Amino acid sequence: MIVVMQTGVAQAQIDHVVQLVRDAGLREHVIVGTERTVIAVVGDERKLELGALENAGGVDRVMPVLAPYKVASREVKREPSVIPLGNGTAVGGKRIGLIAGPCSVESRQQLIEIAHAVKEAGAIGLRGGAFKPRTNPYQFQGLGEKGLEMLAEAREATGLAVVTEVMGVDQVELVSRYADVLQIGTRNMHNFNLLVACGQTKRSVLLKRGWSATLDEFLLAAEYILNAGNPNVILCERGIRTHETYVRNTLPLAIIPAVKRESHLPILIDPSQGTGHAYMVPAMCRASIAAGADGLIVEVHADPEHALTDGAQSITPEVFAQTVRECARIAEAVGRTT
Amino acid sequence: MIVVMQTGVAQAQIDHVVQLVRDAGLREHVIVGTERTVIAVVGDERKLELGALENAGGVDRVMPVLAPYKVASREVKREPSVIPLGNGTAVGGKRIGLIAGPCSVESRQQLIEIAHAVKEAGAIGLRGGAFKPRTNPYQFQGLGEKGLEMLAEAREATGLAVVTEVMGVDQVELVSRYADVLQIGTRNMHNFNLLVACGQTKRSVLLKRGWSATLDEFLLAAEYILNAGNPNVILCERGIRTHETYVRNTLPLAIIPAVKRESHLPILIDPSQGTGHAYMVPAMCRASIAAGADGLIVEVHADPEHALTDGAQSITPEVFAQTVRECARIAEAVGRTT
Amino acid sequence: MIVVMQTGVAQAQIDHVVQLVRDAGLREHVIVGTERTVIAVVGDERKLELGALENAGGVDRVMPVLAPYKVASREVKREPSVIPLGNGTAVGGKRIGLIAGPCSVESRQQLIEIAHAVKEAGAIGLRGGAFKPRTNPYQFQGLGEKGLEMLAEAREATGLAVVTEVMGVDQVELVSRYADVLQIGTRNMHNFNLLVACGQTKRSVLLKRGWSATLDEFLLAAEYILNAGNPNVILCERGIRTHETYVRNTLPLAIIPAVKRESHLPILIDPSQGTGHAYMVPAMCRASIAAGADGLIVEVHADPEHALTDGAQSITPEVFAQTVRECARIAEAVGRTT
Amino acid sequence: MIVVMQTGVAQAQIDHVVQLVRDAGLREHVIVGTERTVIAVVGDERKLELGALENAGGVDRVMPVLAPYKVASREVKREPSVIPLGNGTAVGGKRIGLIAGPCSVESRQQLIEIAHAVKEAGAIGLRGGAFKPRTNPYQFQGLGEKGLEMLAEAREATGLAVVTEVMGVDQVELVSRYADVLQIGTRNMHNFNLLVACGQTKRSVLLKRGWSATLDEFLLAAEYILNAGNPNVILCERGIRTHETYVRNTLPLAIIPAVKRESHLPILIDPSQGTGHAYMVPAMCRASIAAGADGLIVEVHADPEHALTDGAQSITPEVFAQTVRECARIAEAVGRTT
Repeated sequence: MIVVMQTGVAQAQIDHVVQLVRDAGLREHVIVGTERTVIAVVGDERKLELGALENAGGVDRVMPVLAPYKVASREVKREPSVIPLGNGTAVGGKRIGLIAGPCSVESRQQLIEIAHAVKEAGAIGLRGGAFKPRTNPYQFQGLGEKGLEMLAEAREATGLAVVTEVMGVDQVELVSRYADVLQIGTRNMHNFNLLVACGQTKRSVLLKRGWSATLDEFLLAAEYILNAGNPNVILCERGIRTHETYVRNTLPLAIIPAVKRESHLPILIDPSQGTGHAYMVPAMCRASIAAGADGLIVEVHADPEHALTDGAQSITPEVFAQTVRECARIAEAVGRTT
Repeated sequence: MIVVMQTGVAQAQIDHVVQLVRDAGLREHVIVGTERTVIAVVGDERKLELGALENAGGVDRVMPVLAPYKVASREVKREPSVIPLGNGTAVGGKRIGLIAGPCSVESRQQLIEIAHAVKEAGAIGLRGGAFKPRTNPYQFQGLGEKGLEMLAEAREATGLAVVTEVMGVDQVELVSRYADVLQIGTRNMHNFNLLVACGQTKRSVLLKRGWSATLDEFLLAAEYILNAGNPNVILCERGIRTHETYVRNTLPLAIIPAVKRESHLPILIDPSQGTGHAYMVPAMCRASIAAGADGLIVEVHADPEHALTDGAQSITPEVFAQTVRECARIAEAVGRTT
Repeated sequence: MIVVMQTGVAQAQIDHVVQLVRDAGLREHVIVGTERTVIAVVGDERKLELGALENAGGVDRVMPVLAPYKVASREVKREPSVIPLGNGTAVGGKRIGLIAGPCSVESRQQLIEIAHAVKEAGAIGLRGGAFKPRTNPYQFQGLGEKGLEMLAEAREATGLAVVTEVMGVDQVELVSRYADVLQIGTRNMHNFNLLVACGQTKRSVLLKRGWSATLDEFLLAAEYILNAGNPNVILCERGIRTHETYVRNTLPLAIIPAVKRESHLPILIDPSQGTGHAYMVPAMCRASIAAGADGLIVEVHADPEHALTDGAQSITPEVFAQTVRECARIAEAVGRTT
Repeated sequence: MIVVMQTGVAQAQIDHVVQLVRDAGLREHVIVGTERTVIAVVGDERKLELGALENAGGVDRVMPVLAPYKVASREVKREPSVIPLGNGTAVGGKRIGLIAGPCSVESRQQLIEIAHAVKEAGAIGLRGGAFKPRTNPYQFQGLGEKGLEMLAEAREATGLAVVTEVMGVDQVELVSRYADVLQIGTRNMHNFNLLVACGQTKRSVLLKRGWSATLDEFLLAAEYILNAGNPNVILCERGIRTHETYVRNTLPLAIIPAVKRESHLPILIDPSQGTGHAYMVPAMCRASIAAGADGLIVEVHADPEHALTDGAQSITPEVFAQTVRECARIAEAVGRTT
């Protein structure tokens, strides 16, 4: 941690900050510059409430030096983690992991049909929401446990791993019974109780980045799960809120090399949520693979015009199959397979 | 709902959209413009999944006409709602409601001391976190039920209404036993199960806006609570994520006139979270009152340098008392009282 | 400047950075922490290209310590600057400076009428665009020099200082002949040649913050003008681009205490551009004064429905007069006058 | 244009809006819905100041139907434009256009060396700033005309097209004498006089998107150039300002399919400015090609640690050559060449 003092700071103010640092069990180096004095703090600053020091007299600002997460960090584990999906496949290795399916489970027939189609096209996982977080209370909220049963049935039929969202601590046990991978949605990335509860299961966890989370916050959310004892976390970028209006979310693909540098965890991209428009999805699938993503999670619907949720961003099984073929060529170009 | 068709659209495509509209139980007006054809849809569009139409051939985009919320809307209830805090005071009337206290409950003595100080200064509610949502798993997570007991004790001692956060559905029953007002934090604004659970209690609810929520989403979150049977919702703006770095969050005070125009619910401002820096808090308290806010919720700590959470943005009881005096003059200038 | 090295950095990499620092004429302190080594650099870092060091082997990141501006800084001049408007009035002292007028000069009669009205209401400056930066090439672009003549005439008639925009280096001489205050618009805040050209005139300069400029960039733009020899710079906040849609721009009033802390220059608020909606303007005028703004610049039009530009955010002379009365009470409450 | 009226609107208010619409030479359809009345306006709305109608009594909001640009639109020209670079090569066809070079021209030797290297690697254009827009007045501002001479010399030596920035109307004539392609930087995207001045030259123009410009504003800026008589505009995305901190700018690659849908103009990506970190550049080059970009503009420097500008985001000639090889494979995978 670096404490930058204001110009014209008094010696007593410097001494006071030094005392606060020592009280916290850390050591300090006071460096008198030509314009400013800075105090470099040595020791593990993670448990400190950094901000508190800002309120000490004469302090201009406080800058952290250490990344706030630890177990999620590449410093702690240098080789990339390979996370099992539960059906014998995995994400994080040479093979690009493709997960696809409808936004919501709408009916048994719909689901089985799409499951076969995406499996055929090359998917290893089946996505589908049984519990749906809906901004609007008047819209379809999912089929609940009935939807989970249909997902399990689709797994039986296809061998695909089931990836589905868990919306609260009270659902973890139920969803874990049916799902191979627990999805934590963007609205719940900061739901720390849910992170811990998922961290106490044996299921792999797909953690979506919050709409406006920083990279540090994203990796700290993963840290909660890892710390609770579950090493199997898959990160997923699904777009952030910005001023842009031609997309529903802005998809920042530079997070792929950033995550690869900072963490050992694999990262998937969700180009459906990440753009909000079906016509953009194939291009962003290709771009994600080219940038080094470990996989994709894509919304596929046989009849998007009549989809109960997310119709605007769902692609048809035909478009998905074509997109996978394109992605296979890109994967090969970057030394991977699909 | 307005469906804008692409240029050069075929009649069959128009007919198809008309059919989809009628299938949904709505009526249409087709308007052929000089460059574009638009289809105006008449009827309650709230239950429709608007996006799905975007996937129909020849559609350029779909624009909603109706606000997505209803019960929270000023169209449904024209006079402003006055929400009781539970201790005989209320928010939403002529009197500005001041809620203050520490970010976290740290100890019995700390809390009682601050409670007396803020009561003395003019507060009607006491804030204080017993369960703390912390981005960093290595930092102080709150005292839990012990903290709730201390809050109840502070209410006994001062008569202040207790405002404290509930972080999950499983905590609603427990927190409701101690708190007068249930606070739903910014990270949980989209936690729809929690919204419904709080909507089923008898407690007033303080709903904080999500970091990157739109105004529509904010009012839809309130709608979830109202719809569940609880009419007592207080909105609270606490800053949004933007590119700005001299603040921890950007505090958009224009939301005050916007909420007053769209909804009957009262709105408080949290200038502590809303800026992240203690030195900005008094100015933003004054500005909020001047802009028409119904109250403030402010972090006050007797020793911010040693605060376990949010030290950087906590003001001392002395600064709080001085700020209240300034706000009283502003309130008078805009025809209100403190 | 603080250079944070990666974990596991080699001694040769540290030596190399030290060499680079010394080559730049600066000195270093190497601090070996428990997890990271940091190199604190002593000396004036402003002329350094900080980023270049990031490319050196073993460097994780580089953090500046000094503010990048100097002359605009409160460290260099502690007392607030009072900037003359040219008609005997000034901005930055006890009196709140009110500048008002139409977005564009549309006709002689329109301008004179509004000028009298805003003068009557308490304005000291008249705003009005003769050269209009329009996003859309098909819309009204301003009356040009004819508009400047009308502004000068309105000054004759009312004694108001004329504040008008200069859009390029080639207009500086012409606009300076008519205007008392040169306005640099948000789209030109980063137009460094224009900043320098205005800095070489004798006119005061009203500098609007760029849509997405940081505070540092804003003060650096002021620094360009000050450095060119012109001490008379008035800062103006006019809203930033965010994800919010109920406003055209998000108006971040916390910039007022931030500017007061970092700089001696006065700051005005533009609540018209800063919100985009006439109905929000009075509330944000009051809030700005309450937060400590040195003045306001407001769009006023006698017939907003027919305004050639910015009709949606223009208030009528009657609303303006009422708003000034409210602001006078707020000003008094914070120890100032209008 | 769609005018949405408030609930409970009076007939006289509807009649008034109808009159305003007719006065503007347009026609209206009044549609009475179950909750709202909307007025659909037929005719070319581009010359209207839409906002003004918002101020009419009873109006809730106004929504445009037509895209505000015309000549830049794919509706007007369906086949993609191929823009000549001036040295026999072009951008917008099957071949990916690679433009590379130093951020700033620093010396004759530096430039020639890099020019040969990037040509060798496959570039068709040489970038290099002679006039540099610098946020900080204390930093290197470019070599000016001397830099232009060096660029011309490098063209002689290599056959590369010279792409360099023009910062103001007064530089257009000078820069046009040396450059093949005039670059308009992100800070000048809204500098309408400069857009027009470049539109009046015979040079192709590389137009960078503003930091916080919308897609509509970006295409309207292109429209200014096209309207002035110059059909040769190349769009360039270089990242936007968001809350993200692990990058200097967020690079939104979904703009590629969006531009392809809305406009016939080609689009390049600048992954150097678009991320701010050299280590991310190769991944984002590959992703851009995979997403359908027509080319790249990349900062390449032989000694980034000592670069006078943008060292942190410059890659070495070796990394560039390797990146081009990777991009060639991606290009092939999407049916293009490098």
